[in-house]
Amino acid sequence: MSHEVDIVRAVADLRNRVRYWRDQGLGVALVPTMGALHQGHMSLISHALEVADRVVASIFVNPIQFGPGEDFARYPRQEAEDAAQLSKAGCHLLFAPQVAEMYPDGFSTQVRVTGLSEGLCGAARPGHFDGVSTVVSKLLLQVQPSVALFGEKDYQQLAVIRRMVRDLDIPVSVRGVEIVREEDGLALSSRNAYLTAEQRAIAPALYRVLCATAEALAAGGAASDLCPAAAQSLVAAGFDSVDYLELREADTLAPVESVVRPSRLLVAARLGTTRLIDNVALTP
Amino acid sequence: MSHEVDIVRAVADLRNRVRYWRDQGLGVALVPTMGALHQGHMSLISHALEVADRVVASIFVNPIQFGPGEDFARYPRQEAEDAAQLSKAGCHLLFAPQVAEMYPDGFSTQVRVTGLSEGLCGAARPGHFDGVSTVVSKLLLQVQPSVALFGEKDYQQLAVIRRMVRDLDIPVSVRGVEIVREEDGLALSSRNAYLTAEQRAIAPALYRVLCATAEALAAGGAASDLCPAAAQSLVAAGFDSVDYLELREADTLAPVESVVRPSRLLVAARLGTTRLIDNVALTP
Repeated sequence: MSHEVDIVRAVADLRNRVRYWRDQGLGVALVPTMGALHQGHMSLISHALEVADRVVASIFVNPIQFGPGEDFARYPRQEAEDAAQLSKAGCHLLFAPQVAEMYPDGFSTQVRVTGLSEGLCGAARPGHFDGVSTVVSKLLLQVQPSVALFGEKDYQQLAVIRRMVRDLDIPVSVRGVEIVREEDGLALSSRNAYLTAEQRAIAPALYRVLCATAEALAAGGAASDLCPAAAQSLVAAGFDSVDYLELREADTLAPVESVVRPSRLLVAARLGTTRLIDNVALTP
Repeated sequence: MSHEVDIVRAVADLRNRVRYWRDQGLGVALVPTMGALHQGHMSLISHALEVADRVVASIFVNPIQFGPGEDFARYPRQEAEDAAQLSKAGCHLLFAPQVAEMYPDGFSTQVRVTGLSEGLCGAARPGHFDGVSTVVSKLLLQVQPSVALFGEKDYQQLAVIRRMVRDLDIPVSVRGVEIVREEDGLALSSRNAYLTAEQRAIAPALYRVLCATAEALAAGGAASDLCPAAAQSLVAAGFDSVDYLELREADTLAPVESVVRPSRLLVAARLGTTRLIDNVALTP
């Protein structure tokens, strides 16, 4: 029943389309993505359709959020398949700019959120969140949506974006949407495509260990005991290394020893050259 | 004939007022200031009234653009006089927030324009332009004007803001407005109030030397000869030191040796503890 999603590549065209909707009094939602869409992204689109009249998705593999030696070049790109999925989901517009449209010659501005950007994934990926906050601020100001939706899988990214939007007074409401998982618990991620069959069989340990650790924390265990042990059990399960496995306060991402406020248990671990992340919520 | 300008201190009140105008289809201009208003600011207000239906001025002495040892504490604050001037000029709304409204607890985002921010005033005032671009991006997103006006006296600031607005896709048109000068040529500045009578008598040499140097450049002289000589003549005229006196390309602020493209001759020099800046335009 759905018709094909329109694709625009220039900011000017994007703005014309969105302005037309806004002038009619329609609410607009933005779902920023890097493409290689899966059911996690589709969940963002359906949440967006619940809170807005029109939904814009963006697909942009943002070079400035990849470090040297990271997977920018091999990051999966499959626009035709992505557009078909977006069409089926009822998305109204796809913004898919080229790099030169986002970062023309002379581009030299950076948005940086200190503190929140610095530990966890920020430690292993220096500059990553500067790239994220810069591109997301651009997308928000290009589209000017009333609401923007982000997956909770990239939980630190969500916290950084919330902080940035509040700090810069970007007039948009930011919503986090729950992680979508495979039946065996593995969080959906475009990077799961990198996994060999053997690695794929190991990967669900990530969520399993998070859940077991969360249960032990809920029973009164101390993060400083449980987290290092959990990291060890990931290695025992076949992960090559663990970048971090930590309990943090949910909003500020400050390290905490036990769950006295809403908290998150967050993990990043490596299977060969593939880095997987996941997290679970804990409430007191 | 003018009635008193309304003053709002909270972003929410500001937005309500501006939204009401926008909903009526009225164009809104913003004139960001640090107060201590003079005829230079009033010129910004009257230009704003020419290009928009409603004019918002902001007064905020922005702590994060002052370095340690700079004049944040003693910067002149005179809101009642400023409000009276704005009323007389026909300004429609004054946004005068407290520091806690702009930078609440936990604030941790910074907007940085590399390159343009680094030489000239950026060299003597490290971090200054990061503070400027951060507060200006906030003000632009708080007010969401269609046009924002800045004085050309702070020429590097104007170039940084233009770059930031372009790079982050902030939906606003930025206009620079010509410097307003005293009869003897001294550019109007809130910091002129710091000058003793003796210093005030020396100060007009700044513009005089700029004009003479510009003339010599127009006659084919080389910047690398003329600029150091001009700096020396400022010291001979009574300035205590010269931070810089340089010829730069007008948009990129790249150093140039002669005027083959639109250029600016820019200067910063010190009279006691007071630092004065000025600049003149040169066209090929």
